[in-house]
Amino acid sequence: MRIDLNSDLGEGFGPYTIADDAGIMQVITSANLACGYHAGDPVIMDRMVGLAKAAGVDIGAHVGYPDRMGFGRRAMAMDLDELEKHVLYQLGALEGLARPHGRKISHMNPHGALGNLACVDRSVADALVRATSAFDPDIAYLVLSGTELETAARAAGRRTINLFLADRAYLANGQLAPRSLPGAVIKDHKASAERILRLLDDGTLETIDGQVLRIAVQSILVHSDTPGALEMAHSIRRAITDAGGAITPLSQMLS
Amino acid sequence: MRIDLNSDLGEGFGPYTIADDAGIMQVITSANLACGYHAGDPVIMDRMVGLAKAAGVDIGAHVGYPDRMGFGRRAMAMDLDELEKHVLYQLGALEGLARPHGRKISHMNPHGALGNLACVDRSVADALVRATSAFDPDIAYLVLSGTELETAARAAGRRTINLFLADRAYLANGQLAPRSLPGAVIKDHKASAERILRLLDDGTLETIDGQVLRIAVQSILVHSDTPGALEMAHSIRRAITDAGGAITPLSQMLS
Amino acid sequence: MRIDLNSDLGEGFGPYTIADDAGIMQVITSANLACGYHAGDPVIMDRMVGLAKAAGVDIGAHVGYPDRMGFGRRAMAMDLDELEKHVLYQLGALEGLARPHGRKISHMNPHGALGNLACVDRSVADALVRATSAFDPDIAYLVLSGTELETAARAAGRRTINLFLADRAYLANGQLAPRSLPGAVIKDHKASAERILRLLDDGTLETIDGQVLRIAVQSILVHSDTPGALEMAHSIRRAITDAGGAITPLSQMLS
Amino acid sequence: MRIDLNSDLGEGFGPYTIADDAGIMQVITSANLACGYHAGDPVIMDRMVGLAKAAGVDIGAHVGYPDRMGFGRRAMAMDLDELEKHVLYQLGALEGLARPHGRKISHMNPHGALGNLACVDRSVADALVRATSAFDPDIAYLVLSGTELETAARAAGRRTINLFLADRAYLANGQLAPRSLPGAVIKDHKASAERILRLLDDGTLETIDGQVLRIAVQSILVHSDTPGALEMAHSIRRAITDAGGAITPLSQMLS
Repeated sequence: MRIDLNSDLGEGFGPYTIADDAGIMQVITSANLACGYHAGDPVIMDRMVGLAKAAGVDIGAHVGYPDRMGFGRRAMAMDLDELEKHVLYQLGALEGLARPHGRKISHMNPHGALGNLACVDRSVADALVRATSAFDPDIAYLVLSGTELETAARAAGRRTINLFLADRAYLANGQLAPRSLPGAVIKDHKASAERILRLLDDGTLETIDGQVLRIAVQSILVHSDTPGALEMAHSIRRAITDAGGAITPLSQMLS
Repeated sequence: MRIDLNSDLGEGFGPYTIADDAGIMQVITSANLACGYHAGDPVIMDRMVGLAKAAGVDIGAHVGYPDRMGFGRRAMAMDLDELEKHVLYQLGALEGLARPHGRKISHMNPHGALGNLACVDRSVADALVRATSAFDPDIAYLVLSGTELETAARAAGRRTINLFLADRAYLANGQLAPRSLPGAVIKDHKASAERILRLLDDGTLETIDGQVLRIAVQSILVHSDTPGALEMAHSIRRAITDAGGAITPLSQMLS
Repeated sequence: MRIDLNSDLGEGFGPYTIADDAGIMQVITSANLACGYHAGDPVIMDRMVGLAKAAGVDIGAHVGYPDRMGFGRRAMAMDLDELEKHVLYQLGALEGLARPHGRKISHMNPHGALGNLACVDRSVADALVRATSAFDPDIAYLVLSGTELETAARAAGRRTINLFLADRAYLANGQLAPRSLPGAVIKDHKASAERILRLLDDGTLETIDGQVLRIAVQSILVHSDTPGALEMAHSIRRAITDAGGAITPLSQMLS
Repeated sequence: MRIDLNSDLGEGFGPYTIADDAGIMQVITSANLACGYHAGDPVIMDRMVGLAKAAGVDIGAHVGYPDRMGFGRRAMAMDLDELEKHVLYQLGALEGLARPHGRKISHMNPHGALGNLACVDRSVADALVRATSAFDPDIAYLVLSGTELETAARAAGRRTINLFLADRAYLANGQLAPRSLPGAVIKDHKASAERILRLLDDGTLETIDGQVLRIAVQSILVHSDTPGALEMAHSIRRAITDAGGAITPLSQMLS
């Protein structure tokens, strides 16, 4: 019963911070680091890698669109060839800051509008996988089950880590219930924690329409920038360890 | 009598170009590539690496300040720790675009205001060398003789390549004559070419005050963005080969 | 038989230029100036306003998306409220550079992906008109006939200037023939010039399917960044004046 | 006994905030708004002008260097002509967002490294005054007593507003004591408030070396981004009104 806890970190910029990065880093086992596109800068990236190393946390590239003002949340019409080069630039930049700490990029996951597109558009998912594979085929993909990015990564023979969003309801087909559906976002922390425990216990969860869904999950996303994020992260971690679960960096689950 | 020809390339941005990159790439043996800071972007960097590979040209990181509007020519007061991270970011980014082509960064040289500062400020030169060494100690430094960057690189046990500017007069101490001195910039192409030939022939040049200077040079800078740059590059190359010189990528001179 | 000649100018950035701005400025009567978003910067904007003033050329705001690397050609999903603020920022910035020269913004037209969207999406067109009207209701809109931007501007009681693209074929409904249709782009300069003369002569043109279209036109777009742009501009101007047409800044046609 | 309270606001960017802008806006009478260079963006600028209008607060242009990552705190070697254009761009941009709210720019003050330079370098101060005067000669300058910016503004016949920093010690010549001197920064809130009250009472303060300095002050700077900034702002305001002072927007003191 091993599970990874991951979070999006290093999403500040220059003088700005948006999360308690140092606090969250103590709770998780994998950090998805902004690479200077939607957020992050070299000084922040270096600090994040240093904190991750000290805490034994895996580092991943949280790649996004080149749009800091929009925080990578605005869809941008970008040619797929161009997208590949932007992903390579970000992976390389993170490698640049990670190498002096003796760390390697263990995983990747796309951010914001790029992440949304990679869930539903196979050609975009393929472009992400092509770029990442060309950089390092050992990089794993942190994916939601049933998305095009999962399909693309597996089709290319790459490793995937299945991500669970404890605060989101699921459909019977294993995909996230759209936010527009009532009950799609689970705001009650206790209910979130119970979903995680059940999943760890018997590998199932109750879908939005009351069915039982069996789902394979290796990593739980911990929000970093919502109110009370740090407390929530701690409570998730505690619930898992109290139930006998072993919080484990994703690279150790892969090997 | 081997000599490298190098040039600063890939200094366009988005829709803009500033040089005949593809043309110059056919003439030189080492390309100093902008890394997305003072100029360049991922699409351009990828294209440059591809062109360099096809032409058997070495690639280097031409790192600069994060100031596209000022083309990296404006001095910026930047903390040395911060500077190191910015150099690492640029080296990594270039690695990201180079790796899919199976190419490695062979050398580095700083651009514009950062380059000027690294010539005269040891602490800045040391920061560049620390960052570059942490990324890859095999990267060589393309330096002007007698500068702080040369001293810093050698003090750290790194390899240096001595750069010759055929259109600039030298002082008797081996340093460039300041642009403010009359005759500091040599505008006559024939005179430039003759300086190169004499240097290849007997390792000497005439200084601005008429003395004979013995100087060790491994690489000649070919301008990419001046009027008539491509023709000038061809004429330098021809003069060298006609005189029996062997144009050689700097990585082959190092090994 | 008065007609304005307009062109998109000032689309360089920092060290980069993309057109012979000074040359084109001598030929046209209205300049659409980039405002620092898709292109342009304060130094360039100031220079453009100065050149326009010296040549008696009207200045307009050529507003775009905040995406220099993509030159404003990439569609960006931007909230309409946010878009309004970005338009106001650009209008104000141009006013900032224009005022010391004693010049006012006479017109606006959106660039690239924003321009395309404003042709077909009424809500985007309305947002542009709302922002521009709030800044200065006297600003005219340089529009293609039959587009949503024309409709939106007129619905708000604003003045429009109808734009003619001499190198593009038209449909019978007065709209541009899509580029995907054979013959949509007219590459023969002589044919382009003849279309202009016929239009000036009897107000008609031949559509892509051979019909006669009556169309009201007050301004002709002169390309600035295509090969041979300056010669083409001169030849259009000469053809008009030779035929007895009066090249007139759009502000003089409005009053 | 009228005094203005001013603060630097709108210094967030995209998803980031750095101060309780809405809270501080309720306490002050003049807001110095970032203009999209060192910080701020069109959406934030619009919101700030709206908040200022609702609270009866004057708006000023807090102009800076084009360096968001460095928050305008890094000195940049910028040509004076170029600097003028950058100031005009920022003034215009703020005008663009202010005009739809029916507000005008009442004052300006430079930020960070540009602000520091304008205190000590007359040529830079003159460039700021030239640009601002060309945009609108009625704009007042929020200045520290004895600085080059004050001198430059007065020499050009412009209005100045003298700024008091309640948490900084002064020299006998009326200038700020350098931060390097012991006691230069006054951390005790009570001591700060007492300095303000004495100043309002008899126009004097005790200098760092125990002398009595008579100083004319029209506005007090309230920090927006330090810990406890909002409480501090409220306590300063309360101290003044309790002592019978009238908090007054600077534009009302000028007229």
